[in-house]
Amino acid sequence: MADPSRLSLNQITVLSWDLARAVRGCAEHGIGSVGVWIDKVEEAGLAQAVRLLRDHDLEVSSVCRAGFFTDDRPAATIRAENARAVEIAHEVGAACLYIVCGGLGPDRDLAGARSRSLEGLRDLADLAGAAGVRLALEPLHPMMCADRGVVVTLDQALDLVDEIGDDTVGVAVDTYNVWWDPRLGGAIERAGDRVIGYQVCDWLVPQPHPTFGRGIPGDGVIDLRSVTTAVEATGFTGAIEVEIFNEDVWATDPDDVLTAIRSSFELV
Amino acid sequence: MADPSRLSLNQITVLSWDLARAVRGCAEHGIGSVGVWIDKVEEAGLAQAVRLLRDHDLEVSSVCRAGFFTDDRPAATIRAENARAVEIAHEVGAACLYIVCGGLGPDRDLAGARSRSLEGLRDLADLAGAAGVRLALEPLHPMMCADRGVVVTLDQALDLVDEIGDDTVGVAVDTYNVWWDPRLGGAIERAGDRVIGYQVCDWLVPQPHPTFGRGIPGDGVIDLRSVTTAVEATGFTGAIEVEIFNEDVWATDPDDVLTAIRSSFELV
Repeated sequence: MADPSRLSLNQITVLSWDLARAVRGCAEHGIGSVGVWIDKVEEAGLAQAVRLLRDHDLEVSSVCRAGFFTDDRPAATIRAENARAVEIAHEVGAACLYIVCGGLGPDRDLAGARSRSLEGLRDLADLAGAAGVRLALEPLHPMMCADRGVVVTLDQALDLVDEIGDDTVGVAVDTYNVWWDPRLGGAIERAGDRVIGYQVCDWLVPQPHPTFGRGIPGDGVIDLRSVTTAVEATGFTGAIEVEIFNEDVWATDPDDVLTAIRSSFELV
Repeated sequence: MADPSRLSLNQITVLSWDLARAVRGCAEHGIGSVGVWIDKVEEAGLAQAVRLLRDHDLEVSSVCRAGFFTDDRPAATIRAENARAVEIAHEVGAACLYIVCGGLGPDRDLAGARSRSLEGLRDLADLAGAAGVRLALEPLHPMMCADRGVVVTLDQALDLVDEIGDDTVGVAVDTYNVWWDPRLGGAIERAGDRVIGYQVCDWLVPQPHPTFGRGIPGDGVIDLRSVTTAVEATGFTGAIEVEIFNEDVWATDPDDVLTAIRSSFELV
């Protein structure tokens, strides 16, 4: 099993809690790292968020999330949001900023959307590099290709990272998104030290929702330990975030969720 | 656009019709081919099904479907069902029998399930070859990996076909299952004359259901024409099946569905 001290709580898992309560929850449950969401940081205020995290001596394993290069909104708006995300990641001292490229849009031009993703990522890498923030490009599950992320395999993410050729940009492995991929083992090996973020959760059967079908480790069918082994073989020693989008989990007392996550981490 | 004479109706699209009504529907709407489902053939009776198809001079572009090698049922039961599927495909003179490998099951052993799929397919290829029936291995969408099909990319399907090395086994391209794949163009080219089945439908946004989210061509975001172009470049000249699993489509008057499909075929 993974070293329990590497467990990080991605705060989306305790959606009903604000940042202050999530930070206290981590302390109460002996969790030393947290992945924070931008809207929760903004709600707390950035300066106050930094104080909260520092006062509880929490490592910040990630900031979620930026990118959305393909969105049908003004480029300047997207760029400003991404710049703010980089600023937040810098201020909270996050190990990485997660990047989701955005979906396809109605023009059906998948190649074009992928090309816009590459350009957007290249621009953002310049800004992030100057701020000392690393970008973790996260391939999403192919079922999210149309509406959220046109980058859908780890190999494809690595192709983009290769094209950019800047240490600022690495990849994130999220078990829910990549577990099905027959190329997964090979792609993780190919990634090597470019794996800079690792998130776990399980795949429920049946999926209760087209996108909120994630489960607590052990409640689904993913062989999480085998993915962790492959990720560790790259030399990755960072925090392992548990990130769960699931309406049942969100309706559960967050303290009970944290207890379940700590106990299920032995499967990770 | 694809030649309208190549349009085939996969009968799942008109779920409420029995085989006799679907066959008459094809005739009334000037559709010259049909993909039939085993349960509908059995309901009609195999001899009667053969007569119906012959009387209306319909080509049978496929029989759906066999495989399910990983199912947690007695091996003899699965083998008997697959043998019957081969018999039906032979009797109706189908261009191919679609093969879906089955899902992962609760043991979390994805590599094991994929290995059982290969063995099952190899066995079935012997039987099918003797009957002159071609097997079209269909990669399913990765979101179906857990519960329906552990073969989830065209490259992975081709790897299995390569291992078997028997002309009896080819692959099927279904736009809904593969459209997201960054390797799609390359994989279709790699497949070459091993593409023996082609099915089209669209990807709706948002997906109305975790598995029944297919739309009539033009109602979603897939660039169908580009996939057809790639498939045609392999030399494939077979029928193009429209196959739609969607509760709204199923609740629509099938005559209206056939009218819509004929008209939308110009996008294919």
